[in-house]
Amino acid sequence: MIETPYLLFLGDAPDGLAAKVAQGIKDWRPENCVGQFRLEGCKADLGLQDMTLAEAKAAGAKTLVIGVANRGGKISQTWKKVLVEALEEGFDLASGLHNLLRNEEDLAAVAKATGRTLHDVRIPSVQYPIANGEKRTGKRLLAVGTDCSVGKMYTALAMDACMREKGMKSTFRATGQTGILITGDGVPLDAVIADFMAGSIEYLTPDNDPDHWDIIEGQGSLFHVSYSGVTLALVHGGQPDALVLCHEPTRTHMRGLPGYKLPTLEAVRDTALALAKVGNPDCKVVGVSINTQHMGDEEAKAYCAEVEESLGLPCVDPYRHGADRLVEALAAV
Amino acid sequence: MIETPYLLFLGDAPDGLAAKVAQGIKDWRPENCVGQFRLEGCKADLGLQDMTLAEAKAAGAKTLVIGVANRGGKISQTWKKVLVEALEEGFDLASGLHNLLRNEEDLAAVAKATGRTLHDVRIPSVQYPIANGEKRTGKRLLAVGTDCSVGKMYTALAMDACMREKGMKSTFRATGQTGILITGDGVPLDAVIADFMAGSIEYLTPDNDPDHWDIIEGQGSLFHVSYSGVTLALVHGGQPDALVLCHEPTRTHMRGLPGYKLPTLEAVRDTALALAKVGNPDCKVVGVSINTQHMGDEEAKAYCAEVEESLGLPCVDPYRHGADRLVEALAAV
Repeated sequence: MIETPYLLFLGDAPDGLAAKVAQGIKDWRPENCVGQFRLEGCKADLGLQDMTLAEAKAAGAKTLVIGVANRGGKISQTWKKVLVEALEEGFDLASGLHNLLRNEEDLAAVAKATGRTLHDVRIPSVQYPIANGEKRTGKRLLAVGTDCSVGKMYTALAMDACMREKGMKSTFRATGQTGILITGDGVPLDAVIADFMAGSIEYLTPDNDPDHWDIIEGQGSLFHVSYSGVTLALVHGGQPDALVLCHEPTRTHMRGLPGYKLPTLEAVRDTALALAKVGNPDCKVVGVSINTQHMGDEEAKAYCAEVEESLGLPCVDPYRHGADRLVEALAAV
Repeated sequence: MIETPYLLFLGDAPDGLAAKVAQGIKDWRPENCVGQFRLEGCKADLGLQDMTLAEAKAAGAKTLVIGVANRGGKISQTWKKVLVEALEEGFDLASGLHNLLRNEEDLAAVAKATGRTLHDVRIPSVQYPIANGEKRTGKRLLAVGTDCSVGKMYTALAMDACMREKGMKSTFRATGQTGILITGDGVPLDAVIADFMAGSIEYLTPDNDPDHWDIIEGQGSLFHVSYSGVTLALVHGGQPDALVLCHEPTRTHMRGLPGYKLPTLEAVRDTALALAKVGNPDCKVVGVSINTQHMGDEEAKAYCAEVEESLGLPCVDPYRHGADRLVEALAAV
């Protein structure tokens, strides 16, 4: 659990895209963001107040979150200076970088001396159990995709936000680095040991109120041969009552696999639902979320209407059209 | 890669079952076994020659393999004495125990001083790649089960042995601790990090002669909610040309999951085949292997005949009836 609120470190980001983790935090948990910290030459700007470490500390920030990708796979000396000072000022540090904070000798030593915590969210911090498959109270939705990176996290965050706005009980459950940094908690599923994958998702989505929904971020795809095992662990560990299908229609092949075509939404629906019913016979597919970022307005609308017609399920792009119709379908479960 | 041949350490096994790893090595790779080493009070006997360390060394043994489960989850001082002496005599050590050899300070220090290797086969020794899904040359069979521990390893080992007897090109590919100790090589799949599971199986079953078969040991079940993700990584990383279904008919619920019924063989066939076709559209189900250990001879025969009739696939218990009919079906692929 990462302590909030955050000061977002944008470093020397060459453009806004490099700071997309920080952008995600600001978009989905603005209440967690006290301000931003930028180095000279930083080209990203979240529109938050620029703050020194001392100012952010005074404003209540608890953790400095590295919300930017580093260049060349190294944590530079320019960054280090800020990170060390932040520890000295009493901040914890949180990062989803491939190079772990804990492996940097200076950061590890200063964190130890100052009693601060280094959160490397790529690495599990918990010894997860083996899944026991026992029925849990409360309800769960899982986003499943035709492919990786089609908008499963976005869909889950948008549905969670919409549900809370409507006064429904909902918790977004992060299963990847960005989601964990956004919410301050979750399971870095791709880094979990094989035997404990499903158990980690049971751990993430425990017993809850009967009318509470866990909105579980999906990973990979049952049809992506590199990561499908991770996806199936979510389907079985998550014990979902509802699935939402996620798709990006302009993709010509599976991400990173030039020889592999995307499955149809029908194939994902049938395969995911049949497997989900092993863990929860009452599971239903409630809707379809389309990532229409590469389509014009009319094209996007027409495409969603077509899918809605052929699958008989509400179909929207939650970014363009809002998540309301998906949430209404969920409320009917 | 563990150096062969072995001296099999049976320790103070209270009965034959406690030494089942050693029994498996002796049954399936007798040519790898120089002899057995027993402590006073050992109740297991593989029928191999009892040897001192020096005798086994003189007979060519390279590795002392711990072929017995330890009691109380500790490596006892009685064992330690033998293990340390073995290192001093020039043996490597290999173990599938939960407590790792490398975590025992004395063993680690002596191994370092003597330049010997400690093989803890529960832990991957390789940095596996992410799966790339590229088509590989050669052929692959995967054993898939209705449940865990229904005879997938046995089926794969029996088919591999039968194929080699018939002069076919075949390699058993181990994916669990016992299989790795039997063959000296393999992937401890349940201990691999989630993102690299499918890649580890690609690594295990690389390009080969067009008429060569990798006979891949299965793990878990697509219908076992605790481990299904591991199974799917085998289905997609293994890129199988052929599947053999494995089942134990007297089981009343999924292993370790009292609330879960076993799937039908038809359900496993359809689910596994549909998923396997994502990675290899030509994949076929070639036969069924039944573990009839809890059935009488007549009952076993009748059960297999019934399954053969209803599924239209050759069905045998390879332990009772031999693996020939499964291998013939494979040869026809």
